[in-house]
Amino acid sequence: MRIIRSLLDLDFYKLTMCQFAFLLHRMVLVRYAFKNRTIKVALSKIVDAAEVRHQIEMVRKLRFRPEEIAYLRKSKYIPKGMFCEKFLKWLTNLALPEVTVEVVGDQLKIETKGPWPVVILWETLILSIVNELYYREMMKRRGFSEADVFIEGLHRLVSKIDILRANSYITFIEFGTRRRFSHEWQELVIQVLKATVPGQLIGTSNVYFAMKFDLKPIGTFAHELDMVYSGIYCGSDEELRGSHNRVLEDWWNLYGAPLSIALTDTFGSKFFFEDMTKEQAEKWKGLRQDSGDPIEFGEQAIKFYKSHGIDPMTKLIVFSDGLDVFTIVKLAEHFKGRINVTFGWGTNLTNDVGFDTLSLVVKAVEANGKPLVKLSDNLAKAMGPAKVVERFKRVFGYTNTDSKECVV
Amino acid sequence: MRIIRSLLDLDFYKLTMCQFAFLLHRMVLVRYAFKNRTIKVALSKIVDAAEVRHQIEMVRKLRFRPEEIAYLRKSKYIPKGMFCEKFLKWLTNLALPEVTVEVVGDQLKIETKGPWPVVILWETLILSIVNELYYREMMKRRGFSEADVFIEGLHRLVSKIDILRANSYITFIEFGTRRRFSHEWQELVIQVLKATVPGQLIGTSNVYFAMKFDLKPIGTFAHELDMVYSGIYCGSDEELRGSHNRVLEDWWNLYGAPLSIALTDTFGSKFFFEDMTKEQAEKWKGLRQDSGDPIEFGEQAIKFYKSHGIDPMTKLIVFSDGLDVFTIVKLAEHFKGRINVTFGWGTNLTNDVGFDTLSLVVKAVEANGKPLVKLSDNLAKAMGPAKVVERFKRVFGYTNTDSKECVV
Repeated sequence: MRIIRSLLDLDFYKLTMCQFAFLLHRMVLVRYAFKNRTIKVALSKIVDAAEVRHQIEMVRKLRFRPEEIAYLRKSKYIPKGMFCEKFLKWLTNLALPEVTVEVVGDQLKIETKGPWPVVILWETLILSIVNELYYREMMKRRGFSEADVFIEGLHRLVSKIDILRANSYITFIEFGTRRRFSHEWQELVIQVLKATVPGQLIGTSNVYFAMKFDLKPIGTFAHELDMVYSGIYCGSDEELRGSHNRVLEDWWNLYGAPLSIALTDTFGSKFFFEDMTKEQAEKWKGLRQDSGDPIEFGEQAIKFYKSHGIDPMTKLIVFSDGLDVFTIVKLAEHFKGRINVTFGWGTNLTNDVGFDTLSLVVKAVEANGKPLVKLSDNLAKAMGPAKVVERFKRVFGYTNTDSKECVV
Repeated sequence: MRIIRSLLDLDFYKLTMCQFAFLLHRMVLVRYAFKNRTIKVALSKIVDAAEVRHQIEMVRKLRFRPEEIAYLRKSKYIPKGMFCEKFLKWLTNLALPEVTVEVVGDQLKIETKGPWPVVILWETLILSIVNELYYREMMKRRGFSEADVFIEGLHRLVSKIDILRANSYITFIEFGTRRRFSHEWQELVIQVLKATVPGQLIGTSNVYFAMKFDLKPIGTFAHELDMVYSGIYCGSDEELRGSHNRVLEDWWNLYGAPLSIALTDTFGSKFFFEDMTKEQAEKWKGLRQDSGDPIEFGEQAIKFYKSHGIDPMTKLIVFSDGLDVFTIVKLAEHFKGRINVTFGWGTNLTNDVGFDTLSLVVKAVEANGKPLVKLSDNLAKAMGPAKVVERFKRVFGYTNTDSKECVV
């Protein structure tokens, strides 16, 4: 059964970053690679590589449909001009590039390379495919049906909703496309959330479901922007160090305020707060926290804004790292009245159905022939060849030594 | 906000009966009237008659859409020929007739009259409208939002599903269109059921949702057939008595086995079992029980089939009278291995969200100028002018004296 039925069944930020790459760096050649961070799971023994290939081939046959392009051109939540005509026209004719899928030991090696704007779209599509195939097989092996899983998931979801409703000032965004149990389950989750916490669910990262259920598609950019820029601009240490702020500048110039939530941890948040200028801090709506200690991060952010004479209550933090409902409530309470917060809630929202979760990622690993590096505020999420990582640590003044297993 | 968005948003049996009336009794003039059996509720003080009129006018502007006609012509669950081309063509051009809505004391008087095949379609549409308007106003008065109600409803639904799943041999049909809390809520209920008890939910009476969610649309006929026939064929007592079996004959001739579930209580099930012939008992798939004691009825049905030398395990009873999950389990257990049973589950499935329910009906009250009578196995459901009721009791040998308040 086909997992991806529409090219909009991906994260909104893939499209905003895609246009960014299309307009600014069309010829940059990149390589993206899949990685299973949950190494104890022998993925290739569970997920059939041939079936992954088959699902990928079906995606490659998909095109953006006229009504989907029209939705991106102008709709309730997408202002005319956010996506330009040149980009939309290009998108209309786009077919996704080849992906290689190989079994290497007990893991899967999945890679795709080519011009950045086309390769960039694959990430969440591949993740949704591998996840869903994994859980289909797990259901079979454990002898459970979809219905068994859905009722268990529904119990858990309803409990979460009770807690959310008891804390009705909390808002959140559904961010679970990449790690969802399945397309069907994500769809049901979104519908139940829309019915029961309509004011608290402020949107979804999934463009297909945003369109289908009249929700706001939400997302700005991901680590890959900082990472690819560090591959493009890395001649001197100075240039490498400057590449991070170049992302902020280029992004702001393209999208301005509406999409001005900055991701903070690519090279460590310590560097981020040194690098973001007062003017940027004033203009940008807020920050996204995706690794490290969220309380520490929030406190650092408040201090940062205050140090620039900015009232933190005019700014927003989007927490998006491994959230569960208790963490959400704790963070919301902690920062209440001090800085605005919201939550990009992924795995634990769309894949909390009784099975263990997987920490799968697809990351940019090479740009213009240069290996890419991510440091993160959690060394378990760091990536890149050791020697290059050392250079990056030095250049970005990275001193963090925290490492925490990624469970989601 | 528009309550009825499609002319398929009604019970399937309205369409099967509509075609029956169209082909066999097109010129019979009938009058249908709305009645609130929950007399303690001052309906006109809660539901705005002008809003009912407005919603009805919006329905009158609707037409069956080409894709809806195509669905009725032939689809997964509707074999080609069940609805004939002549009927479908007529349906394509159909506009529903006028309905009068008046305030009489603290109740609403809602009536419609005209040729039987057009008037017949109004029943569940009117009921869905009045119900939803009632609950919209109740929410306002009690200070609850839709989301408040939906989460409460979801808790109750999930509990029911747990019980159903623990009794996985039980099947049921969603029959709740007429008494639903709202269109949106019914939609969510159906989706949750489809996700969590896909093998047990064998269909829905709602044609719109059946089409939308690829479920079997289920229904055969209602009291109005027996009742209108008793108005057409009532010259002599003999003719009146014969009108009941004439329905069975005409229905079988039109639809045959696929829609051969007979409703048993219009003039009392005692009469029904006297009236149905051995040949009919052999041919018809089964019976629908809609009033009186369901256990007694089932026992009577088993005795009836056995007396004709028919194995009850080749027959089906559809229970549809005021079911809740405990009654369903009790009946299923009681008849397990003795006769097949399934459940047409209405109010308690689509309107169990915390508010008291209403027992609203729209019934045929006049055909060809003759007042119509229903006796039922529960005198609280009986209707018709006293003098005529007396004649019917005599003609149909009705001796039942049970009366039980209708809560749903």
